[in-house]
This record gives sequence, structure tokens and C-alpha cells, in this order.
Amino acid sequence: MTTTKIMLKEEDIPRQWYNLAADLPSPLQPLLGPDGKPITPDMLTAVFPMNLIEQEVSQERWIDIPEEVLKILYRWRPTPLRRAVYLEEHLKTPARIYYKDESLSPPGSHKPNTSVAQAWYNKQFGIERLTTETGAGQWGSALAFACKLLGLECKVFMVRISFNQKPFRKLMMQTWDANCVSSPSEETKAGRDILEKMPDTSGSLGIAISEAIEAAVTDETGKTRYSLGSVLNHVLLHQTIIGLEAKKQLESIGEKMPDVVIGCAGGGSNFAGLAFPFVLDKINGAEVDIIPVEPEACPTMTQGPFSYDHGDTAKMTPLLPMHSLGHTFVPPPIHAGGLRYHGMAPLVSQLIVEGLLKPRAYHQLKCYELALLWAHTEGAITAPETSHAVACAVDEAEKAREEGKEKVILLNYSGHGLMDLTGYESYLSGQLTDYSLPQEELSKYQEALKDLPKPDLKKTGKW
Amino acid sequence: MTTTKIMLKEEDIPRQWYNLAADLPSPLQPLLGPDGKPITPDMLTAVFPMNLIEQEVSQERWIDIPEEVLKILYRWRPTPLRRAVYLEEHLKTPARIYYKDESLSPPGSHKPNTSVAQAWYNKQFGIERLTTETGAGQWGSALAFACKLLGLECKVFMVRISFNQKPFRKLMMQTWDANCVSSPSEETKAGRDILEKMPDTSGSLGIAISEAIEAAVTDETGKTRYSLGSVLNHVLLHQTIIGLEAKKQLESIGEKMPDVVIGCAGGGSNFAGLAFPFVLDKINGAEVDIIPVEPEACPTMTQGPFSYDHGDTAKMTPLLPMHSLGHTFVPPPIHAGGLRYHGMAPLVSQLIVEGLLKPRAYHQLKCYELALLWAHTEGAITAPETSHAVACAVDEAEKAREEGKEKVILLNYSGHGLMDLTGYESYLSGQLTDYSLPQEELSKYQEALKDLPKPDLKKTGKW
Repeated sequence: MTTTKIMLKEEDIPRQWYNLAADLPSPLQPLLGPDGKPITPDMLTAVFPMNLIEQEVSQERWIDIPEEVLKILYRWRPTPLRRAVYLEEHLKTPARIYYKDESLSPPGSHKPNTSVAQAWYNKQFGIERLTTETGAGQWGSALAFACKLLGLECKVFMVRISFNQKPFRKLMMQTWDANCVSSPSEETKAGRDILEKMPDTSGSLGIAISEAIEAAVTDETGKTRYSLGSVLNHVLLHQTIIGLEAKKQLESIGEKMPDVVIGCAGGGSNFAGLAFPFVLDKINGAEVDIIPVEPEACPTMTQGPFSYDHGDTAKMTPLLPMHSLGHTFVPPPIHAGGLRYHGMAPLVSQLIVEGLLKPRAYHQLKCYELALLWAHTEGAITAPETSHAVACAVDEAEKAREEGKEKVILLNYSGHGLMDLTGYESYLSGQLTDYSLPQEELSKYQEALKDLPKPDLKKTGKW
Repeated sequence: MTTTKIMLKEEDIPRQWYNLAADLPSPLQPLLGPDGKPITPDMLTAVFPMNLIEQEVSQERWIDIPEEVLKILYRWRPTPLRRAVYLEEHLKTPARIYYKDESLSPPGSHKPNTSVAQAWYNKQFGIERLTTETGAGQWGSALAFACKLLGLECKVFMVRISFNQKPFRKLMMQTWDANCVSSPSEETKAGRDILEKMPDTSGSLGIAISEAIEAAVTDETGKTRYSLGSVLNHVLLHQTIIGLEAKKQLESIGEKMPDVVIGCAGGGSNFAGLAFPFVLDKINGAEVDIIPVEPEACPTMTQGPFSYDHGDTAKMTPLLPMHSLGHTFVPPPIHAGGLRYHGMAPLVSQLIVEGLLKPRAYHQLKCYELALLWAHTEGAITAPETSHAVACAVDEAEKAREEGKEKVILLNYSGHGLMDLTGYESYLSGQLTDYSLPQEELSKYQEALKDLPKPDLKKTGKW
């Protein structure tokens, strides 16, 4: 019988994260301040603790995972690597499809891999309280979980429309004792200003980020910092345990190097977590297609230029070197809330520019169609974000069948969809729509990038 | 470091179910027909396939698990046995608390252990379609999942109030292609009769059972049968894989025989699944307290007499020998919907009469309080049913501390609470109430038992 579940023993868990910054063909580009000049690490200390800032700018290839972080990760890690034999049978493909099951963490996604690490480093630094923003609530619930286990307070600014319409992830956060408020709120100047001008606003991630950063930097005790769930280097670093485990698991059954590695990408963290250890192989000459998948409704990698841009609508963050649709871009309301971001992690963006990744975009209707096929064959109900990776894996498996090639396909199963069933309801009742963004509309938002600096990959950064 | 997750290799999965009927000190009592006489297996053939009826009446100690059933169970089995070290630390108890994590199946509970087996046996028998009822939706979603994987149609009659108020488990069923209708429905005579008399009824499990049985027995193709998620012998049998795995896992780390074994009990299946293999040890002389836990609001085992009674309000089912609060009893609306049943599995009931089990009842406020403690220490959000087992385990761990005894406590973590967060919301907002049932009220319902036959454990049954 084919083993469909490849486990890894606790004692074989990776003990170091892999830092891709050490192996980037082009130098890691710095963040820029409002004056267009590289910012220095100490300019970030009001926002992040110095131990995480050091990770953010580190060029060390391997970074030790603290034992106490591992101890918490052991609750659900190592995660199983599963083989999708039932999907393979259905597709009649010669490809072998493996998926790394990150849905088994208590909050239900890959996010706790970094929320636990971030909470631990903050605690080490003497921080007692973290603030963050959340859209649909995946990240907010992961940070609430980590803070509770480590004894930190957690404050989450949740985009108002989700706060009102998606009560369940808010309830998860409250069950883990987080203080979750609707954003814009009366608790920050940024929130009050917006409420005065637009009392009926449905809120946005941009506003929530502004509120969370303000709440961190204005806390007079100095014991509060801000935490981000994707995009930044240290966040992607913490996720590399996914790909490092998957490599060991494939080796343990004598499987060859994957031909295709796939992850969905909103800010880039679950994709990077699986893919970066394989990017290293590709840099060293291995033949592997590495595919980050995004929604057609938010085509950052496939249609956004590589530019410096702000991480938020309100321009509170430094300028990041990244593929971006422009910080004023508001994506259509697709169900994959975690993929509705105008930018992309700088490390992922640089790899695209270097030609090491092959980004691809899918419509949500196709993603739901294949998420249903997944539920009917593999049995599990997929998060709407993850369904983008599933859709791409199915395409690659069908291509392998047409080519008659015995390919190995590896995807990141980043989360379950049990808290996102309303998307399935829309699909099943025929009410789900696709969004096509005309070039003129995309161009309009990219106007905002015109006056911003352009990264030069030939130039060494100043980190 | 203490290992908190005890795995079992796929090849070490139990290959036989344990049938407690072979070891019952008193003979297995027969079901009775409307005439008060034991019914014969062939009288059940319109409702169940003969291969499952044979299991229902079997006295064989070990029954082989078909390879094809195992192949599906492998998707999430063997499940981890976890040690609750963080809860232990918090309680400062010398007890070692282990929990068998049945929440990892795609539908999120132990229910698929039997839904997969039942769907498989029905398919073997040439059946093409299963009907069932569901309250909150745990069982309905588990049967929908199993039917989809095995290519059977699935029809679920869901109690109207849950159908309207709890859309998420309904959406899970629909995602797995089940036809889920609100009960009472226009599709059965039983449903139409009720709708005519009480168009505004909120429905009940009793009505839904009547509809599901009617839909099975009246199907003219002869290819439809009914499926039940608890209570019956064959259902409990399929769950014993839980306890058999747990035993192997405890042995694999050199742990001693548990001093206390705990499971919540509504119809009895998750409790029996963990406990029956340990009941065998107890029958053979081992010292172990085996505790089924029920809600104070539905105190079947602690306050209901052992009697013959109907399984449903409408008296469609045969008479079962069981602890019962009376088939007209309607439990108060506690959040643990899976524990709101007036009866108890005959096998569990007989063990109680034999003095082999020590049933206990808890109020839901205490259960939620300790479910929160669990979320804050162990990290996972517990189903409201499972929180009854958690509450009892905490009590036992505190008792061990007071007695200064190094006890081993084992509980069944039967499901996660991600689809049940509204109960947490009520608790956190201070709106949750306890229900105390005055003796007069309980006595009123037990009037219905007065004229029914009483089982005589000294008498051999006629199965």
C-alpha cells in the first residue's frame, strides 16, 4: 500500500531556519525612509524589538531556532507531508503530488510558525504587549494564540467589515484572550481622524496597520511593540521550517527532488516557507519550477512593477523594494482575504526579478472548482487562499499527464477552510463571480509609484 | 524534554475492532419489538444492511477491520496521543494527563471512524444511498464525508433550528455533496404530518430520525438504508480503534495502565471507543476508574433508570435496554448538542448497571470555564461536548494533587470547537446559564417508561 502520510519524528525537526538573504544572487535591498535614504536598524526600534530587527537585516545563512520556540512548535510540528493519491487517481496523472499539511496548528494555518517566534523574541526583549492588524482574522488569531501561550497581551485591530461580518475568527481571538477591536477605532488618532471624515467606512487593512503601529509606538510604558504576519524578511525566515521539514520527509521515503514547488502568495510568507529551501537548490543548479500563485483579482507579481512602495495605504511604513500594484490599490472582494495585498515580500520580489520564480495568477471560480475536487478526493476542506495552490497543482499534474512525465509536485497546504465556508456557499449557489481588472484600472493605481525610487539590484544595500 | 505527542506508525494501527459484547458479565440484552418480544435480525433489514446487522448482534471478541476501511482511516489515523504537560504545570498536579486527539479528522471529530465503516459495509451490500438525521451537524458532516469518499449518495435531515441557526456544518455537508434538508420537511409523511399540525415547530432529533428512517424504508429501489451515529453496538464497535491505539501508544513509552479513563457521553460512542478496551482490563481485574461524563442538563446515566425505551420521540425504533430519561424528554438548549439525548447506548448502560463505570454529570458553566483553561494552556479550542471530559480530567488531576498521587489520567479529546464558537461567545459575555432540572420535572418524563418492559440482566437475550 502507498503511504499517504509521511511523518517526521520530533527529534528530526529542523533546528535552524534558512535565511535566503545569504544566497540571493543580487544584494538584499534596504528599506528607505521618507527622505528616500536607507533606514538604519535603530530607526525601527520603536516598532520592533532589536533581536527581530537583527534577524530582519541578517545575512547569516542559518539561524538557530530557540529551544523554547521549538517546544511550542512541537504541539503540532513536524507536520505531516501527505501524498494526494486520491487526487492523482482522479486525474489519471503519472505525477506524484505531495502536500505539506500546515492546517493542523490550533489556529488552522501556517501563521503560528512566525507568531510563536515573534512573541518569544519580544518577550525575551522585555516586551509585554503586541499590537497587530488583521483582515479576515487568520493572522490575528495566530498572534492571539502565541501571545496567550507565552503570557503576553495582544491587541488586534480588525478591519470593520470583517469584524462585523466574520465573527468566528474574532471569537477565536477572544477565546485566546486577545483584545480585538473594530478598525477604525476611537483608540488611536489615526482611527479617530478616519471616523470623523468617514463614519460609515468599512475599514481597510491600510487603516488597521496605521492604528496598530500607532498603538505600539505611542505606548508610554515602552513595553509594547508591533507584529506583522507576512512580507518582512524575519517573518519569511520563521516559515522556512516548512520547506526544511518537507525536504527531510521526501528524502526519508527516497523520493527525488520535486520538479514543481507551489505555494499561494499574498504577502509571501507561506510560499516562501515552503519554497526558499528549494530556491537554494535551484540557485545551486537544480532543475525545479517554483511557482507562487496569486489571484487574478490582485495580480501583484504578474502585473505589478518592481518598485519601491509603501506597505500601507496611509504611508506609515518605510518604502519596501517589491512588486506592487500601488499602495492605493484596493483589491476586489474575493474570498481569499489573505491574498488581497497590493505588495509582495521583498525577498520573493527579488527572486522574481532574478528569474528564479514563475508567478502565476488564477481566477477564484477555478480555485473553488478545484477546492471542491480536492474535498471530494482528498477529503479536506481547503482555505480559499490555499485553493490557489491546489488549482496550480492540478494544472501541473494534468500537464504531466499530457507530457507523459512522472513528475513530483509539492505544494503548501497552508490552511483549512472551516472558518471560510461562506465562500463555498457562494460558489455552490452559483453566486460567485470572477473579477477581471482592466489594464487602465491597474495603471491608474500605479500612478502612485511614478515618483517613488526604483530599486537597483546591482547596487549593494546599506543594511 | 518531555515528548508531548506520542505517535503510532501506520503499520502499527489496530487491525481488529474490540467487541465488548463478548466479555459483558451479563448477557447482551435483545431489542424488543412493539409487541414486547425480542426482534430478530431479519426484522431490521429494511433499515440496515445485513453485514452491519450481523455486527450488531455479534458476540465475537475481535472483528477484522476491512483493509479498504483502514485505507481511508489512514488519512488521519493513527491519531496522536498527546500529553497535556502545560495543563499539568498549571494545575501543579503530580498526575500525568494524556488525551487522544480525535479532532484531526477532516470533519473534526471521532465520528468518521464509524461513518467510513458504515458507508463501506453498505456499499459492499450494494446500497447506493444513506439517510440520517443530525442535530448540530457533527454526525451529518461525518457521514457526508464518508459517503463522498466512497461514492454513495447521502441525505441528511437536519433539525430545523440548527439548519437555520448553524449554517456552517450544513455548508460542510454540502461541500461534501450531501443533500441536507431542514426537518420537518415536505419529503416524508412524518414530516408533512408535523408541518400540518405545527408549521412553526423548531424541529427535534426525534422528528428527524423518523424522517430519515421513513426515507430509507420507503425507497422503492431498495438501494437506500439508514445510518446512525451512536448508541448501537456496531457503532460503538467501530470506535474502539481509539482505545486500542491509545493502549499501544501508552505501552510504546513505557507508561503504566491508566488510573482514570474519561470520555463525554451523549449516545456513548466516543466514550465507548476510548474506554471499552480498558473495560476489558477492568473485567480482568485491573484497577481503573472509568468515567462517562454527561451534562447536568441531560443526566441520563446519573438520574435516568435502566429500562426499555424507544430511541426516538415518535416511537419508530425498537425498544432498547438503556438508561433513559424517557423518550418524551426534551433537554434544555445547552451548547453541547451532541450530549442532548434522552437515552444511552445499551452496552454502556449495562456496564453502569454492572458497576464497571462511574458516570458523572457537570454543569456547562464549569465546562466552559475549563475549556478556556485548556485553550490557554494546551492551546486548542475544544468542542462543547469534549469540554465535559476536560472538566472531569481537571477534577481528577486536582484530586491527585490533594492525595499526592502520581496518577495517569486518559481522556478522549473527541472534537475541536471551531464550528461551535457561539457557545464561547455566550460564556465570555456572561450570558451563559446553567440548567438545573428539578426531580419533579425528571419524574414527569419518566412516566412514559412506566408501562415499558424492564430488562433482566440475568436472562439471556435472544439475539
